[in-house]
Amino acid sequence: MPPSLQNNSDNNRLLFLQDVLDSGALQQAARMLNALRPAEVAHLLESLPLPQREIVWELLDDTTDGEILLQVTDEVRDDLISRMDSAELVAATAGLDTDDLADLVKELPRHITWEVLDSLDQQHRERLETVLAYPEESAGGLMNVDTVTVRAEVTLDVVQRYLRHIGEHVPRDTDKVFVVNRDHRYLGVLHLSTILTHDLDDSVAEVMSLDMQPIPAHWSKREVANRFEQHDLISAPVVDENGRLLGRITIDDVVDVIREEGEHQFMGQAGLSEDEDMFAPVMVSAKRRALWLGVNLLTAFLASWVIRQFEATLDQIVALAVLMPIVASMGGIAGTQTLTLAIRGLALGQLSHKNARWLLAKELAVGTINSAIWAVVVGVAAGLWFNDSSIALLIAAAMTINLIFAALAGAILPIALEKLGIDPALAGGVLLTTVTDVVGFLAFLGLATIYLL
Amino acid sequence: MPPSLQNNSDNNRLLFLQDVLDSGALQQAARMLNALRPAEVAHLLESLPLPQREIVWELLDDTTDGEILLQVTDEVRDDLISRMDSAELVAATAGLDTDDLADLVKELPRHITWEVLDSLDQQHRERLETVLAYPEESAGGLMNVDTVTVRAEVTLDVVQRYLRHIGEHVPRDTDKVFVVNRDHRYLGVLHLSTILTHDLDDSVAEVMSLDMQPIPAHWSKREVANRFEQHDLISAPVVDENGRLLGRITIDDVVDVIREEGEHQFMGQAGLSEDEDMFAPVMVSAKRRALWLGVNLLTAFLASWVIRQFEATLDQIVALAVLMPIVASMGGIAGTQTLTLAIRGLALGQLSHKNARWLLAKELAVGTINSAIWAVVVGVAAGLWFNDSSIALLIAAAMTINLIFAALAGAILPIALEKLGIDPALAGGVLLTTVTDVVGFLAFLGLATIYLL
Repeated sequence: MPPSLQNNSDNNRLLFLQDVLDSGALQQAARMLNALRPAEVAHLLESLPLPQREIVWELLDDTTDGEILLQVTDEVRDDLISRMDSAELVAATAGLDTDDLADLVKELPRHITWEVLDSLDQQHRERLETVLAYPEESAGGLMNVDTVTVRAEVTLDVVQRYLRHIGEHVPRDTDKVFVVNRDHRYLGVLHLSTILTHDLDDSVAEVMSLDMQPIPAHWSKREVANRFEQHDLISAPVVDENGRLLGRITIDDVVDVIREEGEHQFMGQAGLSEDEDMFAPVMVSAKRRALWLGVNLLTAFLASWVIRQFEATLDQIVALAVLMPIVASMGGIAGTQTLTLAIRGLALGQLSHKNARWLLAKELAVGTINSAIWAVVVGVAAGLWFNDSSIALLIAAAMTINLIFAALAGAILPIALEKLGIDPALAGGVLLTTVTDVVGFLAFLGLATIYLL
Repeated sequence: MPPSLQNNSDNNRLLFLQDVLDSGALQQAARMLNALRPAEVAHLLESLPLPQREIVWELLDDTTDGEILLQVTDEVRDDLISRMDSAELVAATAGLDTDDLADLVKELPRHITWEVLDSLDQQHRERLETVLAYPEESAGGLMNVDTVTVRAEVTLDVVQRYLRHIGEHVPRDTDKVFVVNRDHRYLGVLHLSTILTHDLDDSVAEVMSLDMQPIPAHWSKREVANRFEQHDLISAPVVDENGRLLGRITIDDVVDVIREEGEHQFMGQAGLSEDEDMFAPVMVSAKRRALWLGVNLLTAFLASWVIRQFEATLDQIVALAVLMPIVASMGGIAGTQTLTLAIRGLALGQLSHKNARWLLAKELAVGTINSAIWAVVVGVAAGLWFNDSSIALLIAAAMTINLIFAALAGAILPIALEKLGIDPALAGGVLLTTVTDVVGFLAFLGLATIYLL
């Protein structure tokens, strides 16, 4: 068993906790859990099947409940919140940062929200309302309003004395303070390392850094994340439309955005949400999955309907039934590759209507080359297998048509979906395989009907 | 046109640059490009088709070449490096941080690496060799060795004077310095905000923070990323097996790891690398895609071979050919959902052999419920469509079998692959659909052969 649980990788920690739980040593489990960080506990909770999760949640001190609720995925949070009474929920919100409190408050039942608002002092309530005024998906919804600001005309010595004065109240992970004018308009930033490495008689205006552009509060999370990545930021100022400083966004919140975006693309392809709880109750999971299976069933029936139009042809040449899945599936694979590239390009803001034409042209060229190669390979293989040269020509022609359509659909679909406001990460895959199935069966069986009968 | 390119979202910047390039105003384009951050330029380069990328690369000042090369994805980097001569490459490495230099040096032709090593002074060369000694995928490969260290027994006043002395040489984004003993063993961290808010006569030992566990140099990138996320870290110390401080990892490098991991899962499903260049030369893309299509073709032929074993059955009941893709595709969809959950669980370190049994049990239960629902729906629909109750019973039975197999395969495959050292994000999808295709066709056509003939 690992001697120190704090400094262990996630997997070992999980194994160790499960051993302790299995052995029934709940006291030991409680001691171990309460020594961990909220995010570590959150990670463990997500990894536990429901019965064990319930035990662990009971073992935890109430003081960190709020922090933990913020760190787990939405589904696990809903599960945990449903086990708490009003008093526990109000207590859990105590001591949270304003941006975190805003996130949590939105998840709580309405009557609890009022109780929480009532429990805050004037200043905190106003701050909370500032954050709540912006959509959760925007820079304003992501920001924290507990910023430390200084005026440009004071000296570093004054700043240093001011910081010493507020002492404990300097927010954790403060690497810079913001410089504002008398109207609270954002002017620049003053790094703590600048204070420490410059003459204390220098004025803030002389040594502050001007190259940090503030982030407008209406920016999307995705724009914020790209800005942080490209500028290697740790924190950044957020301003309203008049350039007034509203708060700051810190890298820890941005890391969550980046992680979620990656998971959204990956999980979305399977019709799952990035908040999916691995151990959600069976009925909850089954219901949600059923929906996705239903959507896909419609497209499967559509493909079957296409096949049925050629029942007479299939009745005469049964080899067609054997080979037709190859044409459809190769189209699906090729199209998914193009689709995946395009979805990533859109997510990174690297695909616009200008270079989309280039991508389309390139993917068409790639599709044409690959269709040529695989048409020959599949044609020869099928011809030898069925000892029939007309089948060989037929499947080669159908493959060529389907792979070219696949490239077209893979490049155009995500861009069209994005324009229509439909999430391509979620809908792209289903639509693409619908196209490649229908075109694949249509081309193969249609050509066969025309030329072989 | 946007007035300030600096403070614009990626998409607008890209559109603007392409307008300028289209109009031929290269001077203006150069001015604009050289005012951007290296990471922003890298993002633009990735978004540009090859001919425009070449023009932009020529317009850029040589001084930022190294930084830009580090920010672009591997494929784009290889493309750019291939356009540079030896002198340009050596010049590009000047002024880079050691961790970045280590990354870049690995990508350069060997004779250039020697030239670069020769151009460094003793201290820099030793630092570079420390980093190069660790695999690129480990904490050691990720770390920077330009850390600022202080001894525990000195006062904050001494620290402050020391920082003022090194001045400009305090690395960018330093939020803390590391405390070591005389053997350079790691003891704790001293936040800059602590120096600014405490009495200068306090000793480092009195005010330093002890709760930051150092990261062992052999940890994988993934473990480092999870640690940063769970502890909301901005930077963290890296130590060797004896606890001696080797360097620090900063959040900007970790953000890249998290982004890459998300893209790896998403792109891997389509057989693409996360480094895939959206505008790679057609022949390069075609070659790589061909490989993936070839792998999938083998599985498609396997499914066809299964179908062909039932040629006689299909010859008698053509309806089977119409309906068989439904059974296979629904299995593929259901299995992919389970697979996706399991792959994410593995990547986050939330799936171990202990809770894998829980996941399997839960997914089997979900699969059973959904197979019951959709077996009825598909059975009724197919029965009505073909006006044949035995077909209805048959497809219902086959759906049930395939959806249960899909849940099994979706849960077991990724765990088995990970144990075998095969990347489930890359191989999982292909293997899963092979299983669901084969089982789907086998169950449907096999049952038909037994009961309908």
